Amino acid sequence: MIGVLGGGQLARMLALAGYPLGERFAAVDPSPECGVRDLARLIVAAYDDPDALDWIAEHCDVVTYEFERVPAASARRIAERTPVHPHPGVLDVAQDRLIEKELFTRLGLATPAFVAVSTRAELEVAAASVGLPAVVKTRREGYDGKGQFVVRARADLDRCWDELGGKDLIVEALVDFDRELSVLAVRSAAGEAAVYPVVENLHHRGILRVARAPAPALAPELQSAAESYARSIMAELDYVGVLAIELFQLGDRLLGNEMAPRVHNSGHWTIEGAVTSQFANHLRAITGRPLGSTRALGHSALVNLIGTLPDPDEILRVEGAHLHLYDKEPRPGRKLGHVTLVADDPDELQERLGRLRGLVD
Amino acid sequence: MIGVLGGGQLARMLALAGYPLGERFAAVDPSPECGVRDLARLIVAAYDDPDALDWIAEHCDVVTYEFERVPAASARRIAERTPVHPHPGVLDVAQDRLIEKELFTRLGLATPAFVAVSTRAELEVAAASVGLPAVVKTRREGYDGKGQFVVRARADLDRCWDELGGKDLIVEALVDFDRELSVLAVRSAAGEAAVYPVVENLHHRGILRVARAPAPALAPELQSAAESYARSIMAELDYVGVLAIELFQLGDRLLGNEMAPRVHNSGHWTIEGAVTSQFANHLRAITGRPLGSTRALGHSALVNLIGTLPDPDEILRVEGAHLHLYDKEPRPGRKLGHVTLVADDPDELQERLGRLRGLVD
Repeated sequence: MIGVLGGGQLARMLALAGYPLGERFAAVDPSPECGVRDLARLIVAAYDDPDALDWIAEHCDVVTYEFERVPAASARRIAERTPVHPHPGVLDVAQDRLIEKELFTRLGLATPAFVAVSTRAELEVAAASVGLPAVVKTRREGYDGKGQFVVRARADLDRCWDELGGKDLIVEALVDFDRELSVLAVRSAAGEAAVYPVVENLHHRGILRVARAPAPALAPELQSAAESYARSIMAELDYVGVLAIELFQLGDRLLGNEMAPRVHNSGHWTIEGAVTSQFANHLRAITGRPLGSTRALGHSALVNLIGTLPDPDEILRVEGAHLHLYDKEPRPGRKLGHVTLVADDPDELQERLGRLRGLVD
Repeated sequence: MIGVLGGGQLARMLALAGYPLGERFAAVDPSPECGVRDLARLIVAAYDDPDALDWIAEHCDVVTYEFERVPAASARRIAERTPVHPHPGVLDVAQDRLIEKELFTRLGLATPAFVAVSTRAELEVAAASVGLPAVVKTRREGYDGKGQFVVRARADLDRCWDELGGKDLIVEALVDFDRELSVLAVRSAAGEAAVYPVVENLHHRGILRVARAPAPALAPELQSAAESYARSIMAELDYVGVLAIELFQLGDRLLGNEMAPRVHNSGHWTIEGAVTSQFANHLRAITGRPLGSTRALGHSALVNLIGTLPDPDEILRVEGAHLHLYDKEPRPGRKLGHVTLVADDPDELQERLGRLRGLVD
């Protein structure tokens, strides 16, 4: 049995990918209504509940997680008794934007200029050093655009401090990038690694809306560079599982933004659009099986369904549309599902994507 | 919630296809160890257990079945309270080889010569009329080669009668076909229909071993003819769901062998090898949603894993191999899983299929 900390849509899609491989699942989640509830033995508990953690450690052959905010201490408690992949040390990196960016730069992946900040005075200095506009983020606990403040003028610093002050912060130059990209990669315990084609991501209000894969018109050198960064980071961390790295493209340069030590929203297109999905490959990696091909099948697009659900029948009428619902109650800003489109050529994809976005927006 | 009579691998794959569409599942099966047990609310009961049937009727929005031997009376009992697709009258046809073949011939799909038989004397006459070799089958209850006897000489008739006598029988000419084919089709309640590419099937000891789709070197006229038969039969039966029709090819002719009113082993390749899988399309049909494209993606092959399981890692090392395990205990002759291969061209497929068969045989 495979244990998953977190029972949301990522755990749900891991389970759906895992049953055909003969796996079974258990999940820990505080909500009895979480998306994996029909597909796993669900332990309803807090992520630091020792009984829940010990149950998972005792009953599972391997444990993984679907979000990087899982308490590292919980992962470590489990790891004393059963393998946890990626190993808990990865959480220390992924949970801290400063350590993460230091890792990137140490391995040759440049990032936007950044400075660590703890006091109001340091914030003032950092803004001057990094330059404005800048984005101030909590070092820990931020996701989907939360815990962030964009400082456009020095006059914004007070409000920024009101909102975020008291926490460890990082001030990053707000980069005028051409587009956002991500690269997903997977590494097995034996050190075998494979990298998916780079994805182009469109965010709105900090939430991923649309992704296209392979990223249109990406220079082969940038694909190679992204692969190289992913392999270096995975090797450095002795990583096992799927890793996502978010990137900014500025002309012919790539800057590292952040990483997620897990299957990732920008990789959902791989279910239909790649030979092996990110979910299947994550499971293959953490269970010690050979990895599958990460090759793309044609051209894919992913559209997130956020806040409200359009009529499923309208979506299913779009040729090649694959609907994935997460079984969650609608709520503003909540990811309720996604749709993947796969087409033989980019023009066909663009036409279908236009129809689909007309239904979703 | 969708109810399924039967909790084996077909129910399992229906459930795996249905969760992304937002469906939930309940299943009735006499075995608590059946393959769907982790993916559905499982009612462990006989297929004619009135409490189980009534529970399903009360709690499910629509009910279907994964095997055609389900008691028609059970389907009718449920249908009094909630929709059953395909409707129970279809079972009367599919459970009787005589009625089935009469339907085929009435709709223009020729079959091997056949005669109904109930007595030893009739068997003698039938053998003379149909000619030898002939295959004698029980009209009802036969599947996967069971309940069949091949009569090559008149001297075999005694042993045949010893084995099958007392039941209603059908004597069919043993046709010297070129190959076995199947056509899978789907029809919605609104009368929308779609047909998958015809599949070539290789059986051994009455069990499907390998299928290739689209059937190699099939004349377009035969694909059209098969589509036409499938559409006629579905329209005649006012059919809702996926229907499989097994065919014999003799030169440029197609003969109807039998039909299965359900998702079918020879359609498992559609999970990765078609735009919309047979499982997703069956669910779309029975829930009143629009059907999805039945177009093939490249060239696919399906290899059944029967009796024993090879090392999964060896299978997963074959490029493009997709493993599907059914979570069943190994037993001689038992279908334990299947592997699908998808390739861009037939030569590539043949090469991979050769490697895979080397692992499986």
